[in-house]
Order: sequence, then C-alpha cells, then structure tokens
Amino acid sequence: MSEDRRLGRLLLVPTPLDFGVSKHGAPPDLQDVLPLGVIRQAAALTHWVAENAKTARAFLKRVNAIVPLALPLQAQQIAELPRPAKGAKGAQASSLDGLLAPALQGQDIGLVSEAGMPAIADPGAALVQAAHRLGIVVLPLSGASSLLLALAASGLNGQSFAFVGYLPVDAVARAARIRELEALSRRAGQAQLAIETPYRNPALLAALLAHLQPATRLSVSCGLTLAEGWTQSNSVAAWRAKPTALPTDVPAVFALQATA
Amino acid sequence: MSEDRRLGRLLLVPTPLDFGVSKHGAPPDLQDVLPLGVIRQAAALTHWVAENAKTARAFLKRVNAIVPLALPLQAQQIAELPRPAKGAKGAQASSLDGLLAPALQGQDIGLVSEAGMPAIADPGAALVQAAHRLGIVVLPLSGASSLLLALAASGLNGQSFAFVGYLPVDAVARAARIRELEALSRRAGQAQLAIETPYRNPALLAALLAHLQPATRLSVSCGLTLAEGWTQSNSVAAWRAKPTALPTDVPAVFALQATA
Repeated sequence: MSEDRRLGRLLLVPTPLDFGVSKHGAPPDLQDVLPLGVIRQAAALTHWVAENAKTARAFLKRVNAIVPLALPLQAQQIAELPRPAKGAKGAQASSLDGLLAPALQGQDIGLVSEAGMPAIADPGAALVQAAHRLGIVVLPLSGASSLLLALAASGLNGQSFAFVGYLPVDAVARAARIRELEALSRRAGQAQLAIETPYRNPALLAALLAHLQPATRLSVSCGLTLAEGWTQSNSVAAWRAKPTALPTDVPAVFALQATA
Repeated sequence: MSEDRRLGRLLLVPTPLDFGVSKHGAPPDLQDVLPLGVIRQAAALTHWVAENAKTARAFLKRVNAIVPLALPLQAQQIAELPRPAKGAKGAQASSLDGLLAPALQGQDIGLVSEAGMPAIADPGAALVQAAHRLGIVVLPLSGASSLLLALAASGLNGQSFAFVGYLPVDAVARAARIRELEALSRRAGQAQLAIETPYRNPALLAALLAHLQPATRLSVSCGLTLAEGWTQSNSVAAWRAKPTALPTDVPAVFALQATA
C-alpha cells in the first residue's frame, strides 16, 4: 500500500440498531451490540462525519459511559453528510473532500450513520469513495448490519442474495416490482431483501402477501437486537393463513425467495 | 408470536473473521471484534451446531478466556452440520431436525460457522429454515460479516447490492460470468460482490482486470479485521496501471460496479 502514513484514516464506525426506537424504554447496553475494541476506537476519535449530528452525539454519550472520550463531547468536531442532491453529483465531490480535510491533515475521522454499518442502506458511500480517491485509508470496524442479521435469521439463501432498498410506494408500481423480484429470485435462486419506512411496514406486508406466489418463502425481521425483536419465516400461504400485525415504529427487513 | 416458550431457541452466534489465518501471529482479542453481550450469551450455551467442531472448540476457548463457560469444554455438546449432499435435500431434513432436538427439549442451541455470521456465505441456512418449521425461535446476535464490511469500505452502492458467491473456476466460464455481472451492475446500478478461495485470489483479480471495462470500479478487501487488512477501491484502469499482489492465505472479498 502506498498511502501516505501521515494521513489520517476514515474509520467506518458501526452504531447500535436501536436508534429512533428508544420509546420502547432504555436502549440495550452498548456492550451488548458493539465490541469493546470498537467502543475504544470510537472514544479515541475527535473528528466525525455523521448522517445526523444529534444522533452521533447521543451515540458518543453512550460510548463515553463505557470508555471516556479523548475530547469532551462539546469539543468533538462533528460534520454532517450533505443530503444527496439528485443530478448534482459533480457539485458534491468538492464538499465531500472538505469533510475529509481533517484526514488530509493527519486526523482520523469516524463515519457514523443513524444505525448499523455506515454506507450500507444509508448515506456515506460517496464519502468513502472520495476517501479512496484522496488516498485515505478506509477501515471498517466490526459491527452488525440489520440486513445481514435478518438474512441469517431468515433461513433463505445466504450464498446468493441481493438488497434492493425500498420498493415503490405507488400500489401498481409496487405490485410490479414485487413480481419482478420474485421472478428474479426464481431465475437466479437469489434471496431478495428490501426495507420500508416503519409506518408503512403493514402496507408492504399486505402487498407482498397479495402479489407473491403461495409457495414463495417470505421472512420478516422486526426490531432486531431489541428485546422485543423477532423473525418470522414461512411460505406466503402460511403467512396468509395466520395474519400477523407488524409494528409501525420499529425498522423491519423483508426477505423473499421463490421456489425453483 | 405463538412459539412455545418451553422450547429452546436457535442463537446465531457470530465468530471472528480471523480463523484459518492464525499463521499471521496471535489472533486479535475477541473483544476487539465481538460484543461482550454476545460473548456472554455464547458462554451460557451448552449445545452447539457447528460447520466444524474443531473450530467451534477453538472459539469456545477464546470465549472462556473472557467469560467462563457454563459447562467445561469437554462437556459441551457440539454437533456438526451435515455436508450438503446435492440432490438429496429430502434426506437432509430429518438429520437437521435431529440437530435441533435439544431445542425441542428446551435447550438453547448456538449455531456457528467457520468465520463471521452463520448462514451467510456459509452453511447453516437449511438448519435455520428447519428451526422456523419446528416453531423454534431464531435469534441472530450482533456480529460482523466480511461481506458487509467489504461493501461499506468499497464506497460502492450500499443501497443496492448483490452477493453472488464464488465465480466459476474455468477461465472461459469465469470470463463470461464477469461480463454478465458487469452488465447486470450497469443495468440495475447494483454493486456485485464475490468471494474466492484464498489461493486463487490473484487469479480472480487477474481475470477481473482482463475482462471488466476500464471505467468499472473494482474494490478488493483482504484480511478484514486483521492488523494487516486493507481495502483498495479504484477504477479498473487505475488497478491495471498499478499492479497489486493479493495475499494467497487470507480471505478476500471482491466488489465491482459498472458506471452507468
């Protein structure tokens, strides 16, 4: 590797999956979901790029309760990722480089998203790409992604799978997309994963049960890593036979796999 | 949820990503890569299903060094997953049910693979599916998957990606598959991830550089979570201009994304 060792690095810092769901009581202990080594590395940082600065500060408070921060919270430099502006990619590159300026000056930077692994089903990939372009070492720290926890818990094909993000909100477009994903899954033997804004969880489940074939397997994971979290995996026919209410206030991951 | 509370659960226990690479010196501290909560849950278990019993025992020794095991190692019940027998799926179901017998009798069971999240790019999904069929609660514990660490570190599309497993070994079939994945990536804007047996890492990199378009982005992550681990992400043209030797003794994850 020819990276300049005087440069700082970009550390991808995983966060717990419980943000935004604290209404369910105290969040789990940080040490239940993050390695101590990761908590220590987070505590040593003083420069951050975050999807949301407020959430990043709440995370750092939890870190500080276990390993004292190198700098007090008020002294931490926390910059926010720009909101993605469609069709303005060129304009964005320079602002991303600005966010990485501390690394060019030798400071390690931590990247955090709202929950889970940054840059996965979350903003941040453009910043990582900018880091590579600038010769800044990118170091992903060990942490959980709700997508992979859900896939592992589904019993669907962990040897071949795709994450497709959000499905269309429009009912007609969504039905077409569901049938397309089922056909793709059948053709390639590939499990297909999607997510939804929590308040639309029940609507997405209803659409999946309306448009998938009875033999297709459907798995839904809700509130993973939370005490009340669960995964249910069954044929569409079995789901239809046993109506299940999904929570509208915790994230869910939906996975489907057509039979061959 | 209507699961019988007297049943044991199937806990999906993540393991470090350093197995099989201990020739590089002492493995990282377990607490660098696994949450204390997960180590505690692993220490409390007495029944296991493992991809490889020997690796599972080595993992439990590392757990025991941090949190004493509920039962001594020799008294732990560790069963191995059956090797997948092609075309004999029916015959397998009953042996999987046998592995889950302790859960039917009220014992929690831990599932572990060689490295990372069980049932992801590893055996175990059929056992998870059997657990759902038997009404056994499946609980995935927080841990890292090399696939998602590699994807996050690549800067490629974390909002849409696919993992396709191994590429064909035959040169002609591999070239065709590489072109197919590139076309798919261009059409769907989807990052494509693949893995390779470590000793073939250099051959896969050579094939990717030979058959991908110059503007396609290629990211390679080697030995993630190890001290010597690294991720390099660049255009194919830039990779070609700067020959890079891949290690043949640590796992690598390859990710590509075609330009639109």
